[in-house]
This record gives sequence, C-alpha cells and structure tokens, in this order.
Amino acid sequence: MIQIISGGVCAAQGFSAAGVHCGIRRNKSKKDLALIYSDVPAQAAAVYTANRVQGVPIAVTRRHLADGIARAVICNSGNANTCNADGEIVAEQMCALTAKELGLDADDVAVASTGVIGQPLDLTPIAAGLPTLVAALSEDGGADAADAIMTTDTRRKEIAVEFTLGGKICHLGGMAKGSGMIHPNMATMLVFITTDVHIPSHVLQIALHDDCKTSFNMVSVDGDTSTNDTVLVLANGEAGNAPVAFDSADYAIFREALQTVTVYLCREIARDGEGATRLLTCQVAGAADVLTARKAAKAVICSSLVKAAGFGADANWGRVLCALGYGVPELEPDNVDVSFRSAAGEITVCIAGRGIAFDEDVAKEILVQPEVTIAVSLGGGKHTAEAWGCDLTYDYVKINGNYRT
Amino acid sequence: MIQIISGGVCAAQGFSAAGVHCGIRRNKSKKDLALIYSDVPAQAAAVYTANRVQGVPIAVTRRHLADGIARAVICNSGNANTCNADGEIVAEQMCALTAKELGLDADDVAVASTGVIGQPLDLTPIAAGLPTLVAALSEDGGADAADAIMTTDTRRKEIAVEFTLGGKICHLGGMAKGSGMIHPNMATMLVFITTDVHIPSHVLQIALHDDCKTSFNMVSVDGDTSTNDTVLVLANGEAGNAPVAFDSADYAIFREALQTVTVYLCREIARDGEGATRLLTCQVAGAADVLTARKAAKAVICSSLVKAAGFGADANWGRVLCALGYGVPELEPDNVDVSFRSAAGEITVCIAGRGIAFDEDVAKEILVQPEVTIAVSLGGGKHTAEAWGCDLTYDYVKINGNYRT
Repeated sequence: MIQIISGGVCAAQGFSAAGVHCGIRRNKSKKDLALIYSDVPAQAAAVYTANRVQGVPIAVTRRHLADGIARAVICNSGNANTCNADGEIVAEQMCALTAKELGLDADDVAVASTGVIGQPLDLTPIAAGLPTLVAALSEDGGADAADAIMTTDTRRKEIAVEFTLGGKICHLGGMAKGSGMIHPNMATMLVFITTDVHIPSHVLQIALHDDCKTSFNMVSVDGDTSTNDTVLVLANGEAGNAPVAFDSADYAIFREALQTVTVYLCREIARDGEGATRLLTCQVAGAADVLTARKAAKAVICSSLVKAAGFGADANWGRVLCALGYGVPELEPDNVDVSFRSAAGEITVCIAGRGIAFDEDVAKEILVQPEVTIAVSLGGGKHTAEAWGCDLTYDYVKINGNYRT
Repeated sequence: MIQIISGGVCAAQGFSAAGVHCGIRRNKSKKDLALIYSDVPAQAAAVYTANRVQGVPIAVTRRHLADGIARAVICNSGNANTCNADGEIVAEQMCALTAKELGLDADDVAVASTGVIGQPLDLTPIAAGLPTLVAALSEDGGADAADAIMTTDTRRKEIAVEFTLGGKICHLGGMAKGSGMIHPNMATMLVFITTDVHIPSHVLQIALHDDCKTSFNMVSVDGDTSTNDTVLVLANGEAGNAPVAFDSADYAIFREALQTVTVYLCREIARDGEGATRLLTCQVAGAADVLTARKAAKAVICSSLVKAAGFGADANWGRVLCALGYGVPELEPDNVDVSFRSAAGEITVCIAGRGIAFDEDVAKEILVQPEVTIAVSLGGGKHTAEAWGCDLTYDYVKINGNYRT
C-alpha cells in the first residue's frame, strides 16, 4: 500500500536539502543553487540522456557514481555547463568545493546543471554561495531545493510516498525540473529521488532503468531530447529494512513506490510544459505488444498538430489518426477507435478508422478542461501504454523565441 | 543547361489546366477544384505518403496509374476525403465524372484531395462544377489550378524549366500545395509535375523516386507526415525527343531539370510553412555518408527549439548541437562546427563542439533576414545534404488551434 505524503527529497529519513540564490542568475528572487545531502553513504543509481551531445556534468557524475555510492548532489540552474571549453574542470570544481564544505570526498558528490547551452559557467558565485547553502541544509529544505533547480518551470515539482517493507516504514520522495527541451530517451530532464530503503545500487539501477520505460520515457513537451537529462536516485538504508533483492516481493513494492513518484513527476512536467494550458494524456489500448503501444502513445503526444488542436480544444481526431499512421508502421487504420475524455465526460469520435457523428458542443466542453485524455484503441491485441504531453501555445513560441536574452 | 521560364503545369506542350470555385469551400473567392489535362496519353509516375493512414484518393490513383498511363488529374481542396466511410466511392466518382466530361476512361484520371481529415466529401458541388472546370481548360490555366489546390498556403507555388534533349526543346513544370502537416516520408504534400519529354513510365518512376530523396523528403514544416502526400508526374512525349533511357546522358539532364523544379517547390513550401516568417535551410557537410548527412539536416530543421529560435532571430546554436546530438547516433560532438549565413553575411558560432565568442549584433542582423542558412560541418567525411524548413511562430499555433472551424 503506497501512501502519498507531503514533502519531496527530504521525506526519507537521513536526508536534508537546501536551495539558495548565489548569483548565477541576475534575478535575486530566483534561487539558482540546490544541494541534497544524506547523513550516511547512500546507494546510488542514475540514468542519463541518450543525446550524443552530453553536458559535462553527466560525465563527472557518471565517474563519481561508478562505485555505486554517493552522499550529496549539487545542482545549479541558469546555465547547462554544456559545450564549454572548460566545462569539465568547472563541474569537477563544483563537486570538490561542495565536498570540502561538507567534509566528504569529491567522489561522493554528484553534479548537475541546467539552463542555456554553450555559455561558460562562472564558478565564482557558486564558490561564494556554497557556505550559505551548506549552512541552510535542513529536513525542511526540500522545497527550496526544488525551487532552485527550476528554469522555465512555473511550478515546483515534488512528491513523496510512504510504504512498508518487512514491517519497516519506508519513504521515497523526489523533485524534478523540466518544462522545455523535454523528450526523454532512456533518461530525462533533471529528477532527484531519495529513499531510506535499503537497496543495493545494482538492484536500484535495474529498478530505475525499468521504471523510466513507463515514466520519463513517455513524456514529451516539444520533441527535443535534452543534452543534460539525468534521473538520480539515492537510497541510504536508514529505514532499516532487509536489503531489497531483485524480483522479490519487496522489489515489487519498491517498484510500485518508485513508479508512483516518477509518474506523478512526469505528469507535473507535462502539465508545466513551456507555455502549456493543459495536460494531454494519450492512453493506448489494444496493441499487439507493449512497444507498439508506447510508440502509438508517444506519436500522438508528440504531434505538433494534435498539440495545437489541444490548445484550441478542437476535436480534430483526424490528426490523431494521422500521427498514429506515421508513428506506428504496423497500424491497421481500419481497427482504430478514438475517444476524448476529461472531468467533463467522454465522447467517441472515430470507430474503426471512420469518423462518426458527434455533438461538437459536448466535445468542446470535454476538451477545454485542464486535463484531457486521448483514448485510442488499436484493436489488435491486449497491450497498453500511456504518454503525457501538453498543448502547443503562443507562449511556447514566446518563451523559446528568445530564451537566451 | 536548365533554364527557368515562366509558367507551371502548362509550360510543357500539350498540357492545359483550370481551377474554379465549385462550392466545397464556403468562401466563393477561393478556388477549390483543379484539373490538369494532357492532349495525348501521358506516361505517369507517382510517389505517395508513407503514412499508414492514407487518403482514399491515393488508393484510387494507385489503381488508375497501374498501367503507367494517365491523361488527367482532378484535385479538390477543403476536404482530404480521408477516414470517411464512403470515401472510396466518392474518389472513384470524381474520376468517373471527370472522365465523362473529357471523353476519357476513368482509369486515365488521377485524383487527389487535400484539407480536413474525417469529414464526408460531398460530390454535389464537384459534379455541378465539372462542366465549368472542363470548359475553362486552357494553356493559361496553370495559375488557376495552382490556386485551387491551396489550403492554408498563402502563396501560389509553380515553376517551369526549359532544356534540350537530343536537340529537341523540352519543358518541365510543376505546382505544389503544402504549408502544414509537412514532413514527407518517401513522398510529400501535393505536387503535380508535367513535361513534354518522351520518357517511359518505369524510367520516370525511378527518376521521381530518386529525386524525392533530395527534394521532398528533405522538407519539414511541423514533423507531421500527412495522410494524402502525393507527387505525380505526367510526361506526354510531345517534345519529340528519343525516349529517355535509364542512366543515359539524357536521363541525367532530365534528372537535373526535375530536381530544379522539385527543390524550388520544396523551398516554396518551407518558406510558406504555416505561420512562417522565414525560410530556414540546413546545409550539412563533412558527413561520413549521405544518409548521416540527411539525418543531421532533417534533425536540425525539425527541432521545435531551433525553429522557435529562428523566429526570435536568436543565435542559439546550442539547440543546433542538441538536435544533432539526438538526431544522429553516430555524431562526434567534438568535431562539429556551426555557422549562420544569410544575405547579410556569415558568422561562425561554434568550432569543434565549443562555443566561440561572436558579435551578437552581427548575428542578429544575419538572422533577421527572410532566408537563413544554418551551416553545419560534422568533420567526419565528405558527404553533404540540405534540408528546408521554417520558423515556429505564434501564427502556426493560431492557424492550427482551430483549423476545422
């Protein structure tokens, strides 16, 4: 039984966090440096972007997590520290300075950066801000940390759950940033998850890898896979449970807790997509296999035309068929049904690949809601998938027409 | 020597065309029915969309062109006649009515439809308009036909060239419609090309197939592959040249003439992309093979973030690197150079995968021009490719937020 509780990365025992404004950004009211800290060494696992152009913080974090152990994560917003000549030195220095302030080895610190690509990241404000950041570490600091990693995000994204393993109360919580350049591929935006569960890093890595297939890999805001996507989990074992073994009953519970947190964060990222006015979910059923189901759901959620119709609350289901048609080479168009669903009701608009008469006013009422589901049945099997995205709006263009200035 | 001349589908000898308003659209000033006619039977070749959901006009045209011969093309705008229960009957009827009016076999008529998907197409206005349409057939009717196939297009797209084969003066001309749902895959939007060259349909088919790889398959407005994409060529042999054999010297000249016409139409389609304010070209050099070069050029031109930066005239080259990084699995980021070029000059912004200092004012002056080239060198070989797209603007969202109404 997975119960949602308040909090984020500090919900698990033995974790503290902080977020401050150090001066990477000019706007002093926007926090730009975050820290997560575990009282004891934690088992660590991470997945990263599949983009061939990778932020150097990923290279550094990969090295530092090679032994499966970490105790802290330092993360700045406002600059991605990617495609810079001195980027790797800067990322290593961020870890070294953080480690020094916390009395750790630099190897036990993970680093992440998010923001504009290709502009040098100045260490000066980070070095100057670190003492304040470390002094601010607190079990109540999760929200500040979640604020500090935001870029074009308009809302803080955090969640935590409670569950039991072998009679021990366990916690798992996370925070995310992500709003544009969101189309994860084997990884995602920046997501940091902490848990007090005792789980070896190699088991944790498998759990995270499998989780991403039905969570972060099923989100798209704009089809652009970022260079800095990272999902990182720290598990410090403070719950005192017996170590979670792969494929055990405890593993299944842990996976469910992890999926609860990651799917929540996915939906929050999609809902807060740059310029978005509504969360679009595509639920696919009737697929011959799970990969086909996922391909279909992603194709619909990624279509610029479906997204623009979402903005206009237009029941333009032909665009859903069109996206399925180019996204799913195995599609049998004559078997496809399409409905729209929201808090205002449900309406079927296409049966067996053909339009049916429907009430446009009813459809409009369903489509103007803040959360809309596009339900597709492929009519060729029993597999399902779900993907999340958002509408394409004037504000997406506004935000991205001149992001650097 | 390929010379551009005035005209479009009527530039070649023995072709006439017409375009009228028959009433599929409410707006009486918008022509909605087009006809192309050859005085004699023409060799015919076509390529179609790779979308699994295909407009029924494609199925009908495919059957009618099976013998490699056609004499007329009937095309309506305002309704795609796709995903409709009676669509195939309607498409066959369009051919039959046209054939009757022209005194032809229905099998010698090709049909195409473009517009909204999933709404029944009423034959009544088409049947009523056909006598007027046929009466209007003229060697000066190319522009009217080009107007009649437009949907959200803001400008007529036609071109013609003159060249000689074995001392005979030949002509090849074409028209296109396409502005949104443009991301051809083995085919494209609607393009009709006519020529008076004598070339057997099987040779013509190979020429067209090869041509599309470096023309229509390298255009993207919004990443959405349409259900009705069709490129159709009619060659009536009226120039009196010796039949063009595959891979002959004449074939090379014909290919060059065809490519001149198709690339021009590609650029016109991209320039007139829904809501576009500028034509973006991505030129890729230094690729290890031609497929890598094409993948790279398409990835850049398709990125929503590159497109939005294009609208803002923002020299955000990091987004170009990012798109190359997810679009080209073989990419070596440290070998990549990026420049921006236009009528106002050229500026290099990234060398060997790292940003270099550049003058933002100079970059802005280059990027505000109506035609901007993003020049990428992959540093890994000698192959090149070129792709065309446009910026992503408020008006794209406006046009597509409520297209049906």
